[in-house]
Amino acid sequence: MAHNKLLSTQQVSQHKAPQDCWIVVDNHVWDVTDFLEEHPGGSSIILKYAGRDATKAYSEVHTPGVLKTNLPPTKYMGALDESTIDDDWIKSSPIETPQVILDNEKPPLHTLINSHDFEVVASRKASKKTWAFYSSAATDLITRDANKSCFDRIWFRPRVLRNVRSVDTKTKILGVNSNLPLFVSPAAMAKLIHPDGECAIARACEDKGIMHGVSNNSSYTMEDLRNTAPSANFFFQLYVNRDREKSAALLRQCSANPNVKAIFVTVDAAWPGKREADERVKADETLSVPMAPSQAKNDKKGGGLGRVMAGFIDSGLTWEDLAWVRQHTHLPVCLKGVMSADDAVLAMEAGLDGILLSNHGGRNLDTSPPSIITLLELQKRCPEIFDKMEIYVDSGIRRGTDILKAICLGATAVGMGRSMLFATNYGQEGVEHLIDIMRDELETAMRNNGITSLDEAAPYLVNTADIDHLVPSARQHPYARKVAKGRRPLPISKL
Amino acid sequence: MAHNKLLSTQQVSQHKAPQDCWIVVDNHVWDVTDFLEEHPGGSSIILKYAGRDATKAYSEVHTPGVLKTNLPPTKYMGALDESTIDDDWIKSSPIETPQVILDNEKPPLHTLINSHDFEVVASRKASKKTWAFYSSAATDLITRDANKSCFDRIWFRPRVLRNVRSVDTKTKILGVNSNLPLFVSPAAMAKLIHPDGECAIARACEDKGIMHGVSNNSSYTMEDLRNTAPSANFFFQLYVNRDREKSAALLRQCSANPNVKAIFVTVDAAWPGKREADERVKADETLSVPMAPSQAKNDKKGGGLGRVMAGFIDSGLTWEDLAWVRQHTHLPVCLKGVMSADDAVLAMEAGLDGILLSNHGGRNLDTSPPSIITLLELQKRCPEIFDKMEIYVDSGIRRGTDILKAICLGATAVGMGRSMLFATNYGQEGVEHLIDIMRDELETAMRNNGITSLDEAAPYLVNTADIDHLVPSARQHPYARKVAKGRRPLPISKL
Amino acid sequence: MAHNKLLSTQQVSQHKAPQDCWIVVDNHVWDVTDFLEEHPGGSSIILKYAGRDATKAYSEVHTPGVLKTNLPPTKYMGALDESTIDDDWIKSSPIETPQVILDNEKPPLHTLINSHDFEVVASRKASKKTWAFYSSAATDLITRDANKSCFDRIWFRPRVLRNVRSVDTKTKILGVNSNLPLFVSPAAMAKLIHPDGECAIARACEDKGIMHGVSNNSSYTMEDLRNTAPSANFFFQLYVNRDREKSAALLRQCSANPNVKAIFVTVDAAWPGKREADERVKADETLSVPMAPSQAKNDKKGGGLGRVMAGFIDSGLTWEDLAWVRQHTHLPVCLKGVMSADDAVLAMEAGLDGILLSNHGGRNLDTSPPSIITLLELQKRCPEIFDKMEIYVDSGIRRGTDILKAICLGATAVGMGRSMLFATNYGQEGVEHLIDIMRDELETAMRNNGITSLDEAAPYLVNTADIDHLVPSARQHPYARKVAKGRRPLPISKL
Amino acid sequence: MAHNKLLSTQQVSQHKAPQDCWIVVDNHVWDVTDFLEEHPGGSSIILKYAGRDATKAYSEVHTPGVLKTNLPPTKYMGALDESTIDDDWIKSSPIETPQVILDNEKPPLHTLINSHDFEVVASRKASKKTWAFYSSAATDLITRDANKSCFDRIWFRPRVLRNVRSVDTKTKILGVNSNLPLFVSPAAMAKLIHPDGECAIARACEDKGIMHGVSNNSSYTMEDLRNTAPSANFFFQLYVNRDREKSAALLRQCSANPNVKAIFVTVDAAWPGKREADERVKADETLSVPMAPSQAKNDKKGGGLGRVMAGFIDSGLTWEDLAWVRQHTHLPVCLKGVMSADDAVLAMEAGLDGILLSNHGGRNLDTSPPSIITLLELQKRCPEIFDKMEIYVDSGIRRGTDILKAICLGATAVGMGRSMLFATNYGQEGVEHLIDIMRDELETAMRNNGITSLDEAAPYLVNTADIDHLVPSARQHPYARKVAKGRRPLPISKL
Repeated sequence: MAHNKLLSTQQVSQHKAPQDCWIVVDNHVWDVTDFLEEHPGGSSIILKYAGRDATKAYSEVHTPGVLKTNLPPTKYMGALDESTIDDDWIKSSPIETPQVILDNEKPPLHTLINSHDFEVVASRKASKKTWAFYSSAATDLITRDANKSCFDRIWFRPRVLRNVRSVDTKTKILGVNSNLPLFVSPAAMAKLIHPDGECAIARACEDKGIMHGVSNNSSYTMEDLRNTAPSANFFFQLYVNRDREKSAALLRQCSANPNVKAIFVTVDAAWPGKREADERVKADETLSVPMAPSQAKNDKKGGGLGRVMAGFIDSGLTWEDLAWVRQHTHLPVCLKGVMSADDAVLAMEAGLDGILLSNHGGRNLDTSPPSIITLLELQKRCPEIFDKMEIYVDSGIRRGTDILKAICLGATAVGMGRSMLFATNYGQEGVEHLIDIMRDELETAMRNNGITSLDEAAPYLVNTADIDHLVPSARQHPYARKVAKGRRPLPISKL
Repeated sequence: MAHNKLLSTQQVSQHKAPQDCWIVVDNHVWDVTDFLEEHPGGSSIILKYAGRDATKAYSEVHTPGVLKTNLPPTKYMGALDESTIDDDWIKSSPIETPQVILDNEKPPLHTLINSHDFEVVASRKASKKTWAFYSSAATDLITRDANKSCFDRIWFRPRVLRNVRSVDTKTKILGVNSNLPLFVSPAAMAKLIHPDGECAIARACEDKGIMHGVSNNSSYTMEDLRNTAPSANFFFQLYVNRDREKSAALLRQCSANPNVKAIFVTVDAAWPGKREADERVKADETLSVPMAPSQAKNDKKGGGLGRVMAGFIDSGLTWEDLAWVRQHTHLPVCLKGVMSADDAVLAMEAGLDGILLSNHGGRNLDTSPPSIITLLELQKRCPEIFDKMEIYVDSGIRRGTDILKAICLGATAVGMGRSMLFATNYGQEGVEHLIDIMRDELETAMRNNGITSLDEAAPYLVNTADIDHLVPSARQHPYARKVAKGRRPLPISKL
Repeated sequence: MAHNKLLSTQQVSQHKAPQDCWIVVDNHVWDVTDFLEEHPGGSSIILKYAGRDATKAYSEVHTPGVLKTNLPPTKYMGALDESTIDDDWIKSSPIETPQVILDNEKPPLHTLINSHDFEVVASRKASKKTWAFYSSAATDLITRDANKSCFDRIWFRPRVLRNVRSVDTKTKILGVNSNLPLFVSPAAMAKLIHPDGECAIARACEDKGIMHGVSNNSSYTMEDLRNTAPSANFFFQLYVNRDREKSAALLRQCSANPNVKAIFVTVDAAWPGKREADERVKADETLSVPMAPSQAKNDKKGGGLGRVMAGFIDSGLTWEDLAWVRQHTHLPVCLKGVMSADDAVLAMEAGLDGILLSNHGGRNLDTSPPSIITLLELQKRCPEIFDKMEIYVDSGIRRGTDILKAICLGATAVGMGRSMLFATNYGQEGVEHLIDIMRDELETAMRNNGITSLDEAAPYLVNTADIDHLVPSARQHPYARKVAKGRRPLPISKL
Repeated sequence: MAHNKLLSTQQVSQHKAPQDCWIVVDNHVWDVTDFLEEHPGGSSIILKYAGRDATKAYSEVHTPGVLKTNLPPTKYMGALDESTIDDDWIKSSPIETPQVILDNEKPPLHTLINSHDFEVVASRKASKKTWAFYSSAATDLITRDANKSCFDRIWFRPRVLRNVRSVDTKTKILGVNSNLPLFVSPAAMAKLIHPDGECAIARACEDKGIMHGVSNNSSYTMEDLRNTAPSANFFFQLYVNRDREKSAALLRQCSANPNVKAIFVTVDAAWPGKREADERVKADETLSVPMAPSQAKNDKKGGGLGRVMAGFIDSGLTWEDLAWVRQHTHLPVCLKGVMSADDAVLAMEAGLDGILLSNHGGRNLDTSPPSIITLLELQKRCPEIFDKMEIYVDSGIRRGTDILKAICLGATAVGMGRSMLFATNYGQEGVEHLIDIMRDELETAMRNNGITSLDEAAPYLVNTADIDHLVPSARQHPYARKVAKGRRPLPISKL
């Protein structure tokens, strides 16, 4: 560190490019080139002062020690030779006050390199209410966190010395081509984080060739989405309305929309979960969504968007009602939200086309089982089901390795919901970037496991020993289907 | 952020309502509307300065950077145009010093949305001694914490597509109707946190239709409680006095009180536990309780209220003494504090009406078993007991999901002690609010598991695989009832 | 908070007693009565200013906000009426500067209520080197921490309704009466923390009627200890010297000392462990111990007292050498530091009188097994050993519940080493206080488990299910005694 | 604390030696002797002011409270008697400004006493990019951390009373003598942390008599290394180039180099892992390595050195290609990166000379199995392999106890990669110091387990019960070798 060196204003002003940027603060000269991209407030605000005096702007935002603390001593270039200060120098310093709002700028998209990054940015840049609504989950967040941690506890058993030069991630979902075994899981109100909302997602899915699961509580209608992304493939997530005619109308619209390939009836949200972060933040009561007769409001329980917007959903839906759904659509019908092998078998017996193992991202019933545990339960208790219908998984997918684990264990494809909303923060480009990341991570995971197509993904590639003991082993209770009569608790068979 | 904008005092003073509130600090104008409810010191102190200059009040409590740090830049409205300051403006600024005591105000009751919130508020607002006495538990707090975490490690196995439109949480406890499978567990000296003490609890239980378990160390007598809540149902928790006549008198009074429905004899506190937080804070030696001959004091061990107030309890109580209890009351007699299947069987053989599985909230013997583990032990080792007597559980219940898990595993009802004391912080209204919260959480959990009455709650709905290995599997040792003779340790059968 | 109230100097000066103490800081009057005992620098420094102005003394040590931050608003009594300041007031304020060294004062002994407290005080008040030497353990501290956590993972199975009015903790150790199943485990150089060193321990053990295990590296000789505590019972911990004659001399001295009841030959320290905290602090090279030819020094590995002082120990000691020990003493001979059932059986076959299961407090070999796991290994693999010799346990005992767990699982008595050193910080009185605490905790644990004598302590009272899987189940390998020949690793039988 | 004592400048100036060093700051005299070595900026900067006034230098770097906060009150010697200040005193205070860069000095090598210390120093002193490249691992770092934690969960079963006076750590690796069962694992670009790079490592290995595994991406060529360390033993880690002729040339060079004893073909990096810390820091694009046609660059994914430099590696390598390798060298050929028993068996069948169980330090595929788990898998599923070929382990070795555990479980030797790079921070001397530390730790572990040669290291000395459940128990899937056909997932045999 040449801290005794005196530098003239002429010398300093030569370093004014992004790749060679010095600034002066309190007559100390610093090389901030390497720091530009790390600056929490973005690089542009610094570049305004490249080769110039930034004291005034700096002082409005930072305390004097920040530079010294954050830069290594090697970046200290010396002291400004004050005798060289002249009019040019003084004029060169921009007079506009730095805009503090810059601190609020999102980091450049290319600096986000995984799904966690999108979540971090959203936590800082989305409105408080949007963040609360998107990120919240039921009560103590146990299921939300276990969704991810159970994936992390599955080990690979990678095979080496296999030719993995080219890798193919293509698959089919309900007969529809998909470039990845990944779809966007239905998630409500994408417009809260970006004006383009679900339109951005639809266009990204169209470009990247994956399926977009559209929420009943989408900020845009299916027609809007078809218009914006005319060759996209959708499935529609239905919340059955207590007023059945309204749901029937929606089913008819979807069936008439050639881009809609399937109906997913939601069954994991018979009653709205208690999402406390969502309740604690006041909602904008002007908010409504076009395909559901819902209107935000704040009541004595709080401002929970998730709870209030769900007001129209019929909590009386039963297996019998699925016949009614079939009557109103020719499309494949799947269930979203199966959480037990017992109900998976019932779904198979009911002739459904697929089931999405999901706990609603942990948003509805805390300590409901992580989806990957339910997938293992199917492998253990009803493996024949994989021959009869497609099985999907969502809740907790954050990495390409997570996708591959689910596929190895029998899933046809997996969905990502929250992460896609967080990516929508950057509009269509953000969602595309996230899909690219997931593809890259999946391909890397496949190659490093020694496989090149999804057909090769099989259970022998994963070691679930660390979570196998969590998988329920008991057979379905004999009386379970008719609902247990009598108060007397039954002995736990597995004890 | 329009921070260059100049705002006149006239403009500022128009934003003076709770739903549109600006304040001026150091000539900066901020919109604090959204911040009102978050303000740790309560919103009222801010509202005093709505549309006005708050600099003086602000500076007495906060350092200059607090506002900038806590508010997003979008809430900065601009600078105050100092040329517009006039006499009206100056006079409008209240001259009274802000009352620092406001920091001590409790948050509004409706902002508390779960049992944890009541605990957090009590930790901050109750006196140091009250907090220490209520929250403390034996030595290293292992049992206290495991009481809760063992519930968290039980997973649901929710069933879908069942009609859950209407849900019924009613049940009977010893033949007495209860709107919930929940009662207030006996806990001492509620007056420490609110002058109404147990009277507030009794009235809340009366209104909400649940049973109130009254502590032998209650701040009010059974007669007081009956007078304040004439249609409430109570059970009385008895600590048997070394001077048996005193206990006999209490039993006679309870038996003559038509609101008292049962006697719970405490057996998990043969000796006072070592509650270190309680010992470390000096007690008010004027404190005494009416139904027990107890008087607080500070001695060389410390100021432990729990220890000192328990001085009258007979540590020589045995199974034989239960006959003596029966002689002094016609009421059902239950045991509070059974911690093993062995003693549960003895209680069944002794003809008791019920047992409350409890470890005294972890307050007496650290590493005594979590109550839910004891419930599983009963299911495993003596399932026939559920046909013979009612089983209750307390210690660790914080959520509606916890209640449902205990019911699924065979409990008739569960108790909450500490949480109810924390709710008493807000008087009767607080306790009612907490009961409402618990009911709402329980109903939500029932619905999202696919059941609508407690009769349907059965073991097949829960997965205890993560804690099953903790359940003792050994049969009761053959000599256990006569007390092992001889020093030689016996081989551990399960190893 | 009556913060607008003006208080005269006369009013303030009336509150000058420990039980009613006000002080003035910056003209604010605070009631610090309740705070006296909490003051980290001790109460005496505050009491100097009781009823007076403490501004000057306060400011030298604290920043202005400390009082406001640490005291509740209710302790603010008002502002000092400056018009009442007179000469008496000014003179009443002591002029001596507060002694910063007071921050170094130990808290009063009676405020320490468990063994952890003694450790905390030692960590703050002992010299850096003493703390490093006493508290350090081998490399990553895994064994040190597991010693305690394995106790914490054992649950009790408490029995209720047993007469526990009087409880008896007496037992015999090698035929010697002991008031508790507890002894002081040998630990080196107690003088580092208090000038009385082992003399303080010996006198405390004499008064409390428990046995004192004296380290070969004691700061005082056995004769010193016998002189200071003429009716104490000792056992002597022998490190066998490479120069056997020196050890023989020690054995002869011990055998001639009627207070010495047994010899414990240390076998868990064949080579000094790597205690990094100890190495990192420079040692005082003038330090030596009388019964071992050891002298502290700092070398290129660091300043490790434990390592350097162990230089004389013979790392070539074998089972054959025990015969040599027997030749030089008529006293019972035990082994300290057995860590496997295999060696326990060898010790039994060698005819030793007892074994102390110990890993040297985790100080010698990191990831050596926690002692309580070794005790379970004995129960599992060689239960007959409990009929043949006495088994002791140390390493990790911090609570009365720990003592009871070890006794239930077959130990005759347990030792505490580090905690006793930390208690020696307060001299004899400190050690006595700690022994009293341990007795009280043990009695409470016995009573709350439903037993009144140690004869009743048996395995059925504990549930070790959470750690049973850690207990080695393999039988001793057939070749283990002759030392495995050949490099080829043997299959792990238990896999 | 004698803080009222006045000290003359003459008195102060006598304490000017490293072993007796006082300094004056703001006229307070402090004894900083004990603090010298702890000073984060190194002792030399303080010693400049020994016995003199350091106020000016101190103030440039520290706030006034630092000394008071960091030194115990006993180190305060008194106030400077200002009346004794004379010209000599004033002149004695050096006038040069303290060099802030001193904060960047590495601590003296002898103060580093374990492998963690080297990592800590590197994290602070290496360039940001070097630290990111060396320390990073794949995505969520799960495998990187489990590599270490799985070692920590293996317990020893130490044996006592065995003669461990002399201990021998010598062994043979592929017939080559090694003083330790330890080698330097291949790791790329050591020059990033020290100009001597791999030359420093080679010379250290030569001096200490262990083998140096040289990375294909070494900063120096094999010839450079042979020249600098003419009697060192190397093995060469080959990344097979898509342009086979380039690899063939390297193989020929290695085969002609008498110091190269084996070729290790890397198979755990078919595709570069996603090392996010590495991607996030911009790379110096002028960087290249001599033996690989690689050039650093920054692209849209980031600046990942690991990814970009791996661009030449052939991801199409298969078992068949090993024959091609054999054709170009007479040296023993081993595989680096086997992660399953299945591939270990294939390697054995392919006639390889050894395999290095490795997951590339967790750098390539997150949740690939910890190497020690793979070693246990071999013991469980194909124990015969230990008779047929040498097995090595790397990834996670940080302690001598880790080395011994791997040897007990059948490994011939273990490798350390990252730690050796961190030690290279200090050049050859640093690497030697680390090797000495590892030898000392290994010898201590052997002795305290009761063994004196590696031949005695056998499974009975370790208890793997805490991780045994993680070891895959399923037999290799019947179709695994021909690669599973068909999409249908296979039932998981072990469930």
